[in-house]
Amino acid sequence: MNTSIIRYILGQVLKVESMLMILPCIVALIYGEDDIFAYLIVIGITGLLGILSTIKKPESNVFYLKEGCVTTALSWIVISIFGSLPFIFTGDIPSFTDALFETISGFTTTGSSILTNVEALSHTNLFWRSFTHWVGGMGVLVFVLAIIPLSGGSNINIMRAESPGPSVGKIVPKIRETARILYLIYLGMTVVEIILLLLGGMPGFDAVTLSFGSAGTGGFGIKADSCASYSPYCQWVITIAMIMFGVNFNAYYFILLKDFKNLFNMEEVKCYFMIIFSAIAIIMINVSHLYKNIFTALRHTAFTVGSIITTTGYATADFDKWSGFAKFVLVAIMFVGACAGSTGGGIKVSRIIMLFKGMLKELNSYIHPKSVKKIKFDGKPIEHEVVRATNAYFITFIFLFALSIFAISFEGYGATTSFTSVAATINNIGPGLSLVGPTGNFGFFSNFSKYVLMFDMLAGRLELFPLLIMFHPAIWSDLLTKVKVHKKR
Amino acid sequence: MNTSIIRYILGQVLKVESMLMILPCIVALIYGEDDIFAYLIVIGITGLLGILSTIKKPESNVFYLKEGCVTTALSWIVISIFGSLPFIFTGDIPSFTDALFETISGFTTTGSSILTNVEALSHTNLFWRSFTHWVGGMGVLVFVLAIIPLSGGSNINIMRAESPGPSVGKIVPKIRETARILYLIYLGMTVVEIILLLLGGMPGFDAVTLSFGSAGTGGFGIKADSCASYSPYCQWVITIAMIMFGVNFNAYYFILLKDFKNLFNMEEVKCYFMIIFSAIAIIMINVSHLYKNIFTALRHTAFTVGSIITTTGYATADFDKWSGFAKFVLVAIMFVGACAGSTGGGIKVSRIIMLFKGMLKELNSYIHPKSVKKIKFDGKPIEHEVVRATNAYFITFIFLFALSIFAISFEGYGATTSFTSVAATINNIGPGLSLVGPTGNFGFFSNFSKYVLMFDMLAGRLELFPLLIMFHPAIWSDLLTKVKVHKKR
Repeated sequence: MNTSIIRYILGQVLKVESMLMILPCIVALIYGEDDIFAYLIVIGITGLLGILSTIKKPESNVFYLKEGCVTTALSWIVISIFGSLPFIFTGDIPSFTDALFETISGFTTTGSSILTNVEALSHTNLFWRSFTHWVGGMGVLVFVLAIIPLSGGSNINIMRAESPGPSVGKIVPKIRETARILYLIYLGMTVVEIILLLLGGMPGFDAVTLSFGSAGTGGFGIKADSCASYSPYCQWVITIAMIMFGVNFNAYYFILLKDFKNLFNMEEVKCYFMIIFSAIAIIMINVSHLYKNIFTALRHTAFTVGSIITTTGYATADFDKWSGFAKFVLVAIMFVGACAGSTGGGIKVSRIIMLFKGMLKELNSYIHPKSVKKIKFDGKPIEHEVVRATNAYFITFIFLFALSIFAISFEGYGATTSFTSVAATINNIGPGLSLVGPTGNFGFFSNFSKYVLMFDMLAGRLELFPLLIMFHPAIWSDLLTKVKVHKKR
Repeated sequence: MNTSIIRYILGQVLKVESMLMILPCIVALIYGEDDIFAYLIVIGITGLLGILSTIKKPESNVFYLKEGCVTTALSWIVISIFGSLPFIFTGDIPSFTDALFETISGFTTTGSSILTNVEALSHTNLFWRSFTHWVGGMGVLVFVLAIIPLSGGSNINIMRAESPGPSVGKIVPKIRETARILYLIYLGMTVVEIILLLLGGMPGFDAVTLSFGSAGTGGFGIKADSCASYSPYCQWVITIAMIMFGVNFNAYYFILLKDFKNLFNMEEVKCYFMIIFSAIAIIMINVSHLYKNIFTALRHTAFTVGSIITTTGYATADFDKWSGFAKFVLVAIMFVGACAGSTGGGIKVSRIIMLFKGMLKELNSYIHPKSVKKIKFDGKPIEHEVVRATNAYFITFIFLFALSIFAISFEGYGATTSFTSVAATINNIGPGLSLVGPTGNFGFFSNFSKYVLMFDMLAGRLELFPLLIMFHPAIWSDLLTKVKVHKKR
């Protein structure tokens, strides 16, 4: 394995992270908070390590998918560890495990929190916490890629390892150009959301942090009641924003190009909106009696459905109090998730479509055993490889899901809590039901369970295999051999 | 579609069913119960219909997989409908829906009951109820096949549609011979169990009915406390019997042939025992404090694990009162199920092994993207078709599972009840947790939910596709065209 390029990219990641931390410093200056010193120390440490790791250029540019996965997994772990330091140094989250949980939850855009009182945090820390969502939304390495040039086969293999969805959305031939275009769209949409929220009279700090959280489909709020106290107008803005950020970004690129033929051909996006509308309608009928009128019911239902299917996790209503049927629909769309190529998590609508079509194909094979028709997607036949990878993804997902529940059910917090805490983290949503419902938090879990859930957040965000590969003996023997060779020199 | 041969086979099924009902009549004579008249009426109706449907030989012997599936699905529905009539006519279960639920639960070897007091049933009905397990265990059509000769391609396509497991266990070249050998082994083992129970001082009626239930891995008991009141010796006999009937029957055939090389090469069987021993060990540690000594704990744990993994569903302990962790392990092995080619249900150990190997293969493909190694099973490479079918099975299983929970969660009986009642029926186990736990029953559900669960029992027993195919428009248009053609004549 080409460890020198991995080292080099990790160094770049650290450099970028130290630069990103300048933003919370500005916030600290504005609000006159002395948290700035903690951030400056972390900037120093992170920057120095970054510079040291990138002084020496990589010995070789050979970069396969294997290196792409290892780099991606390690980048996310490294950026989370260093990103958690400010919380520890400022004393707002003194425990390392808790700070790491919060930071991983941030970068993976999960939004599950261990905090019992989020309002006790300083503006500086609240800003950094929400900002991690924005950075993680499009992918930490895609972000690095968009600003720092890398050579060799690294770009495509990093995109493949980090991008959400069954196939890489390469909208222009050059990967770096793709990363830049996506980030510009992402930035533009975030700015629009901030402006719309400001127009609704939301305070600037709230508008910025909440927009970070909805853009990255993260879900960290800055108030104890998440989004319940904002005006209906602001709640609607956030609802629409969340749903928009859950759309495959290729759609926006098509809009920019005025390529409406390709736009309206996007099966996944059509299906995504169909699921959203159906879920809202079904739940509305079920919960409307709980609210004073149908408009209030619609607002809370639309917000919750948008928040859950995009795996954001904001809340305006305590949906844990809804009927069992409404909760079932919510749990179901937790797994469906958003579109591939969006900032959202979950299994992804396109995968669900493919699995469903595979099922129909199997059923057909009982009637026409000799048929060899391929599954089609967006009108084009899908390669056997993609189908296989999608099946393997789903199967691995279910296995990991069961194994995680197994691991945390030691603690005995009840079936609903165990089930939905894993569902909420592996799908990068945030809140679950029962003890981890919208009014609860993840602080009560043991450290062991917290690490299990951190693993699930990373596994969910990195689409399982790039993280699971780290447990493959071949990777370890490869890494260890390299270290030995290095020592012998 | 060749409807004439379907009509002919269904007629044979009815004839066989009417003959099977002679056994409960003998029981009625022994106990002097007047239920005999109800049974005689049903024998008359069923036998007459059977004879009428088989007077005319099929016009053609063409028989594809499609016909195999339709025949299988209809046979199971028809045998259940007519099998439920005695319960209605004797007045023991007056509601048609309830009687059908109980009969489908019997033939599919599920063992879920709608009865609140099973001890109120007559000996005749209790016998018939347990006997349906024994008939359904090896497959209704395999049973018919073993006694009535059919021609054309029908045999293999019926075996393929009805046999549990990813591949048909054709142990000798002739399918009919295979069916006979399997039934002889099955009969022999059942007789041994009855003798062992009689030696333990169990009353004859109990020994016979409980042996039917464990042989078919069904689980209908004849007492309100299932198996709790029998002696430890008898409980151990049942434990071992259940586990033995969950083994792939090919293993016994290898033993008969003294082919120990092939016997010890059976990956699935080894894995099955490993899972059983691990589950017993894990649960033992967790629940031993609930029992007076370690031997009692071992007895209840082994019985429960054996009962659940083989999808029998007998109980000696109220495992709903065990810790959340122990319950999680039970729910997990509910899904694993027994070996393919056994009388047990669930996803089957061999499928779990294949899914697991597929997962490892996918992980490997990230390290060696160009490797084309096939997955191996019992040392032999598995065909791509089998892997695809296994994946499709698992995916369809999860979809159907979610859809069923969706359908019954309307009723609002709580997440655990909804989840485990579907798990217990689709895996053909019997009891679930909470309201449908070992001390509960399924009687409280609405008729709608009962039909959903009946569908799940049939879908689980028929391995999904042979039943799901009945919803395919091609099948219906095919059947309707035939009827129209027939009318025009």
